[in-house]
Parts: sequence; structure tokens; C-alpha cells
Amino acid sequence: MLSLASTFTPIGIIHSCFGEKFGIPRQAGLVPVARATLELLPPCATPEAVRGLNGFSHLWLIFVFHGIPAGQWQPTVRPPRLGGRQRMGVFASRSPFRPNPIGLSAVRLERIAINQGRVTLHLAGVDVLDGTPVLDIKPYLPYADCLPDAAGGFAPQAPELRLTVEFSSAATMFCAAWPDDEWHELIVQVLRQDPRPAYERATVTPQRYGMRLKGMEVHWEIRGETAYVTDINPVPAGSPG
Amino acid sequence: MLSLASTFTPIGIIHSCFGEKFGIPRQAGLVPVARATLELLPPCATPEAVRGLNGFSHLWLIFVFHGIPAGQWQPTVRPPRLGGRQRMGVFASRSPFRPNPIGLSAVRLERIAINQGRVTLHLAGVDVLDGTPVLDIKPYLPYADCLPDAAGGFAPQAPELRLTVEFSSAATMFCAAWPDDEWHELIVQVLRQDPRPAYERATVTPQRYGMRLKGMEVHWEIRGETAYVTDINPVPAGSPG
Repeated sequence: MLSLASTFTPIGIIHSCFGEKFGIPRQAGLVPVARATLELLPPCATPEAVRGLNGFSHLWLIFVFHGIPAGQWQPTVRPPRLGGRQRMGVFASRSPFRPNPIGLSAVRLERIAINQGRVTLHLAGVDVLDGTPVLDIKPYLPYADCLPDAAGGFAPQAPELRLTVEFSSAATMFCAAWPDDEWHELIVQVLRQDPRPAYERATVTPQRYGMRLKGMEVHWEIRGETAYVTDINPVPAGSPG
Repeated sequence: MLSLASTFTPIGIIHSCFGEKFGIPRQAGLVPVARATLELLPPCATPEAVRGLNGFSHLWLIFVFHGIPAGQWQPTVRPPRLGGRQRMGVFASRSPFRPNPIGLSAVRLERIAINQGRVTLHLAGVDVLDGTPVLDIKPYLPYADCLPDAAGGFAPQAPELRLTVEFSSAATMFCAAWPDDEWHELIVQVLRQDPRPAYERATVTPQRYGMRLKGMEVHWEIRGETAYVTDINPVPAGSPG
């Protein structure tokens, strides 16, 4: 067999609101206020490389699922969409556990900041982990990339929003203290997706969860069909990340 | 700086109707009858890996622009769309000359053939060179990937179809001899895109062109606004490819 291995070096690094895998939306665009910046790295960190990109509202990120240990894939996966009970081919899924751990996301380009030779793209609707290495950026071309009549197999629509989200007084006060930071909206948009693994959704005993979001720890409980945000706290000193 | 290079091995190889770079449509979908097969390679060549994929009408190919010598990129490119006269950032274009020569195409999945352990995907609407190494396949998810309101910058619509296509008697007879092979339709769809480099479109002297398509050499002349197909011949013995 031919040896056709290819080696790629990141053209940039993502600084994302998502500090851990748990809680990341399952596709781009599902959480419109999920923000990130993409900082271009040398030799790509030049304003010329993004000339004309600001005319596009969206772009493709092709990136590495760097949080996934190498070689951790199987021919079939259990899509959360199917309740985790049915196995589908890895190539019929967008699971990060793939033969080549490459991700693909269409994200909104909010603006491009150029400052003393640094080039930073401000993005929204992201579904990528903080620190993600990006291999390529391409403009989203509606005429070639938007296929409204495509049949979406076992995932024809966006996942159902199963949960309503409520906040404790403490969590409400926290969000109110940073009105420009969209904390409230971000938490609502993330938690109404119900980040739990499918097999935990069947559990009837009360469950407590936490995730790292914008450098804070957000905690919530599942109470029936409600995600109840109990508290939002600084990450304890000495925690990784 | 962190060293974050990633090495990927192809999961499959494309057998495409396009035997050389010249004439390949500039995006997927522009030539609906452009066909290819994607043969999965071990360890991915297993029916389990594509289970459920047949429910999707389209898929993403993430592939290597293997026809492009490594390191051949500049921060700006001259998109054919702008007549080759204006420079845009490489990340604002889909040019194959990129820091990481990775391609992205949404193609139609016609069927999946499984035969004695070989897994072959039959594809249409392709824009990839014969022999292309594929790094990943993902299902096209309309709810996440189709963004009808996206602003397409300097490429808001499909390129204008500039040319009408006419056939000589010899070329007509050739196409009629293989009625199932869609030769006529394929040549029309490819040539009406006008594969010429932008700078040659301004030339008024008659021009002759040739391209390798489905293992044959197709020749045409540009006569005003018409691409006139003169002949379709076997590739001469001893030619590369």
C-alpha cells in the first residue's frame, strides 16, 4: 500500500468559552452566543492572509480534536441522538472519536481584529474546546455549502430542546453583575441542549452537574424537565486548566 | 511556541473522472454528473464504519490536495471569481494553495457498495482529482451545515456560466456510442464553467484546450462565447497518468 501520511501544523489556536469537553454543544450554531477567538500563528499571522474574509458572515474551521487521545476510535459509535442505544458507523456520525480526529464547524465571523501584527478572529456559535489547534479556515460559500434539500439521515433536525433552565437567586445575581457578558443567555443556551450523556437521561434520581464555562464553574441540578442552576463560582485554585 | 503538528493517514482514496487539475470544477456540486468512487482503506474498510450513512444524501469529504507541492502558498491569492486581477487572503478563498493543503467538498452520496470486504462509496458532484487521499468523511447535516442567510463575500452566487458548448460530428458520435456514460452531459457541464485561467479569457485569438476526463483526452476550441468540442480520443500511449 502507498504511504500517504500527511503532517499539518496549526495555523491558529482557539480561545473558547468551553474549558472542558462536557457541555460543549454537539454541533456549531446550536449555541449562538458561544464565543471564541481564533488567534493566527506565524507564518499565517498576517493581515494579508485574511484580506476579504470580513465580507463573509460565516467560515469553516477545520481543526484537531486535541482533547481525544490518539487511536481511540471504533468502527461504530453510539450517537446521543439515538439515545445511546444504537450503533452507527463512525463515518455516519460527527463523533470526535474518528480514525483521523479532525473536526469541522461552520461558525459566525463577528469581526477581525488586527493589532500590532496579531490577527484575531472573533467567532460565535462555536462548539470547540479551549486550546483547539486549527488547521484551516475557509470562507462559507452558501452556493456550494448550503444544501437545503439534503437528507439528514438519522439527524434530520436540530436536537430537541428537552430542558427549561432556571436560576437560583445566587446564580441570577451573578449573571446580573456582568450584563455585557451574556452569562444568562449563554447558560440557558448550553443547558437547554441537555449536555448529559444519553444513558443518564433515563435516571430518575436527582443529578448534579458542573462544567467549566468562561473560566468559571457552573453547577446545576436536573429536576424533572428543568435544569436548575445552583451556583457559578471561580474555578478552585490549583485546578487543571 | 508549542509544537502541535498532527499526522494523518488516509482513510480512503478517490477514483475520479478528473485525471488532471485543469478542468476540475471550482467547487463541489457545480458539475452534478461529475462522478467518483471513494474506496475505503484498511483499517477503515469495514461495512460497520459506514453503517447508517446511506440515510444521508450528501457527505463531506475532507481530503489532501495531493497535486500541490508542499509549501507552495502565499498569504494572498488571485481568485478566478475576481478575474484574476485582485488579491484576496488565502483564508478568504478556497484555493488549493494553502498553508495546510486540505480540501473540503460537499458531494452527493449515490450508493454504497460492499463487496467481499471492500467498501466503495459512489459519489457525484465531485471536484477532486483522481487519486486524492481522503482524511475523513462526515455526514452532511442540513440543520448545522446549511446556512441560507450566510453572506458569501465576493462569491455570493455560483460562477456565471459564460459559455455554450457545441460538439463536432466526431465528438457527437463518440458521446452517442456510450449513452449510459453521460459523456455529453459531463462535457457540457464541465466546459460551460469555462475552465480557462482568468487571464486567458481576455485573449481574442482562437484558443485550443485539452483535458483528461474519464481516461480520455477531450479537446475543444474557444470560439467567441462557445466552447466547441473538436474531438475525444484515447490518451496517447506512454502518457503519464
